[in-house]
Amino acid sequence: MNPKGANPDPVAAVGARVREAARLVATAPSRQRDAALLAAADALEADAERIVVANALDITRAEEGGVSPTVIDRLRLDTGRVASMAGGLRQVAALPDPVGEVLGGWVRPNGLRIHQVRVPLGVVAIIYENRPNVTSDAAGLCLKSGNAAFLRGSSGAIDSNRAISSVLREAVASVGLPEDAVALLDDTSREAAVAFMQLRGIVDCLIPRGGPALIASILEHATVPYVIDGDGNCHVYVDASADLDMAERIVVNAKTQRPSVCNAAETLLVHEDVADSFLPRIADALAGVELLGDERTRARIPAAGLADEEAYATEFLDLRMAVAVVDDLDAAIDHIRRYTSGHSEAIVTADLAAAERFTREVDAAAVLVNASTRFVDGEEFGFGAEIGISTQKLHARGPMALRELTTAKYVVHGDGQVRG
Amino acid sequence: MNPKGANPDPVAAVGARVREAARLVATAPSRQRDAALLAAADALEADAERIVVANALDITRAEEGGVSPTVIDRLRLDTGRVASMAGGLRQVAALPDPVGEVLGGWVRPNGLRIHQVRVPLGVVAIIYENRPNVTSDAAGLCLKSGNAAFLRGSSGAIDSNRAISSVLREAVASVGLPEDAVALLDDTSREAAVAFMQLRGIVDCLIPRGGPALIASILEHATVPYVIDGDGNCHVYVDASADLDMAERIVVNAKTQRPSVCNAAETLLVHEDVADSFLPRIADALAGVELLGDERTRARIPAAGLADEEAYATEFLDLRMAVAVVDDLDAAIDHIRRYTSGHSEAIVTADLAAAERFTREVDAAAVLVNASTRFVDGEEFGFGAEIGISTQKLHARGPMALRELTTAKYVVHGDGQVRG
Repeated sequence: MNPKGANPDPVAAVGARVREAARLVATAPSRQRDAALLAAADALEADAERIVVANALDITRAEEGGVSPTVIDRLRLDTGRVASMAGGLRQVAALPDPVGEVLGGWVRPNGLRIHQVRVPLGVVAIIYENRPNVTSDAAGLCLKSGNAAFLRGSSGAIDSNRAISSVLREAVASVGLPEDAVALLDDTSREAAVAFMQLRGIVDCLIPRGGPALIASILEHATVPYVIDGDGNCHVYVDASADLDMAERIVVNAKTQRPSVCNAAETLLVHEDVADSFLPRIADALAGVELLGDERTRARIPAAGLADEEAYATEFLDLRMAVAVVDDLDAAIDHIRRYTSGHSEAIVTADLAAAERFTREVDAAAVLVNASTRFVDGEEFGFGAEIGISTQKLHARGPMALRELTTAKYVVHGDGQVRG
Repeated sequence: MNPKGANPDPVAAVGARVREAARLVATAPSRQRDAALLAAADALEADAERIVVANALDITRAEEGGVSPTVIDRLRLDTGRVASMAGGLRQVAALPDPVGEVLGGWVRPNGLRIHQVRVPLGVVAIIYENRPNVTSDAAGLCLKSGNAAFLRGSSGAIDSNRAISSVLREAVASVGLPEDAVALLDDTSREAAVAFMQLRGIVDCLIPRGGPALIASILEHATVPYVIDGDGNCHVYVDASADLDMAERIVVNAKTQRPSVCNAAETLLVHEDVADSFLPRIADALAGVELLGDERTRARIPAAGLADEEAYATEFLDLRMAVAVVDDLDAAIDHIRRYTSGHSEAIVTADLAAAERFTREVDAAAVLVNASTRFVDGEEFGFGAEIGISTQKLHARGPMALRELTTAKYVVHGDGQVRG
C-alpha cells in the first residue's frame, strides 16, 4: 500500500487497524462476541437521543438538497427506529454461532485425518447508501460471525453513521474486544470509495448494498473479492392446472405486499388455457396496479397498456406489473430464461411434472412452487437475519446471513506422514 | 454485447453458444455426461497421433522462439501423455456426481418446505498457460459437474489445444450433448482475453490457471466472478516439543519432494530450544538445497546465506529455503501471519496445546499438524481430481474439485402460502 512510509494512505491505514482487530475477533469466544452485541444494543437505546440529534443534521441537509421524500424516509431515525436496531442486535446475539461448525471430516488411507471447519472471513467490508440502520445491522452480523466490520456509508448519512458507529465501538471495547472490530470509513469521497474497493490483502469480502450505479462501480474498480446483492426481476407463472384462487392470492401478495423490494414479483405469466378465466379476475384483484401486457393479455384486460421488450426486462419496484400469456410451460420457462435476474421465480400449479420441470430448469437463487416470491428472505427462510440476497452463483446464492459471512479451513492431523 | 447487430463481437458470439449448451448439459442425466467423458477418453487415445502432430507445431514454434526447456517440457505431448489425459477423464467419470445433492432441508412454521440443492454453475471459463493437458482435464471436470467448459489457452499451445478440443467436441456430440459444451476460444490475442474476462451474463465462474501476470490481469479487467488459484508461500514450524526425526522427514518432504509446486514448503521456522540440535541435522538432510537464514540460523548453519525480508516473502518454487529461529509459538504464528499467502501451513509438535493454537490461529486454506504440506491437493484429500487450489476465502478455499464447480439453488414448496 505504502511501502515508502510517506504520504500515508488513510483508507489503508484504517484498514490495517481493522485487519488487526479481525484477528482478535476471529478467535474470541462466542460468549464475548455475543456480549458485545448485547452491550451495543443497550448502548444504542441509552444513546438514542444523541443518535437522533445527529440524524437530524443529515435530514436537514437532505431536505435542503431536495432529496426525495422516499429517500428521506429511509434516512430518518427516531427513538423507535433506534430501538429496532437494538432489537435486531439482540436477535442476532441469540442465534447459534456459525464459527467452529465442522462441515465434514474423513480419514485418508495413509491415516491423515482431515476436517473442514467453518471459520470467519476476517474483514468484511460493506458499502451502502442512505440507510443508517445498516451500520448497526451489518456490524452485528459481522461480529456474530467472528468478523470485523469495515463500513463505508454514504455522505448523506455520515452524521448518523458516525454517531451509531461511535456507540457500537464503545460497546465493543467495553467487553474487551478491539474497538476497530467496527470501523466506519469517515471519508465519503468517491476516491476513498475506490480505495476501499481495492484494499486487497485487507478486505476479505466486500458486500455492496445499493443500486445499479454502485454495482457498476464495484465491477469497474473492485480488486477485493465481493458478493453482489443484485436485482430481482421475479416472475410468477400461473400454469394451466393452477388452483386459480391460490394463484390470485399468490400473485396479489407477490406484487403488492411490499412492491419496493427485490423479492416482489414484476411479471405475471399465464398459461393460455386459463387466460380467459384468470386474467379478468387478477386485473380486478390487482386494482391500483398498472398492468402492461402483450396482445393476448390485452384481449382479456382491455385496460392494460402495451408491454414492450423493456417492460419485461424492468424491475419496477412499484405498483406496475408486466403480463404475458404463454402457450405452455416451455414458453414460460423460455420467457423467464430470457428476462430473469436469477433471484426468485414461482410457479402456481397442481401438476407434479410441471412443478418438477420448473424447479429443475429455471436457473435462479430460489424457485418456488405454490408460494409467494416474497418468502425469499433470510428471516422467512429461518436464518434469523439477513445481510443481503445474492444473485450471483459463487460463495453465496440467495438470502445471505451468518453462514455466508464465513469461510472454511481444512485442518489436517497426521503422525509424521510424508508424500511418496 | 451487441445490441445493434452490426460488428458482432466474436468472443460474445461463441459465449452465447456455450451458454445455450450449458443449459442443456445442466439438466442432462449424469449417465449421459459420464458417457461423454468416456467417449472423449476413447477418442483421445484413438486420435493420439493427430494430437501429437499438432503439438509438434507448437513445440517447433516454441523452440524457434527460444522458450525455456522447462516450459517446452510442460507443452510437449507424446502418446503416453495423451493416454494420461484419457485416463484422467475415465477417473473423473467414475467419481460420484455432485449435481443434485441435497445440502439441507427444513420446514418453516407456515408449512413451507425448503431444500437447498447442489446445481451446476453453468458456464465455467478457464484461462490458462502452455499446458495442453488442461484443455482435457478442465473440460472433463466441467462436464462431470454439469457445466459447459469455455477454454482460453495460450497462443503457444494453440495447435495442441485446437486438436484436443476438436476431439472432445466430437465425443460430446457423439453422445447427444451439444458440442459447444466444450469450446475453445480460438483467438489468443490479449484483446480477446480481456473480452473473455468481461462476458458478464455468460460466464458464471472464471478460473485462471497461471502466474502472477495472469492474476494481475484478472484483477484489473475481469467483471465476471472468478476464483483465484494463488501462490503458496508455505511454512513448516518445528516446535520445541517436536519429534526431530519426524520433523526432518516432513521438512525434507515438504521442500524437496516436488519443489516447483504451490504446496511445497518455502520457509522453515525452528523453535530456539531445538535450534542447536535440529538446524545442523536438517542442513545435512537438505543437502542440495540453498538455505537462507537469519543470524540465529547462521550461527548453527554457517553455510547458510543471509535471509532478508524478501527471502521470507518469496515463493521460490525451487531448491531454496528460507529459515528463521523463533522464540516461541507466538513468534512462529506472527512470522506466518506476516508472510503467508494463505495456502498451507504446518506445525511439527508433540504438544497438544501448541497444535490446537496453531490450527486455530493460523489463517490459511489448510493447516497441518505433523504432516507434510505436500498433502494439500485434491487427489491427496480424496477428491479424485483437482482443478486448482484456491487461496481466496469466497466460494472455495483449498483444493477445488467437483463440488467447487457447483452452486446451490433453494427449492421452496408450499400450498398457497402468502406473506403477511
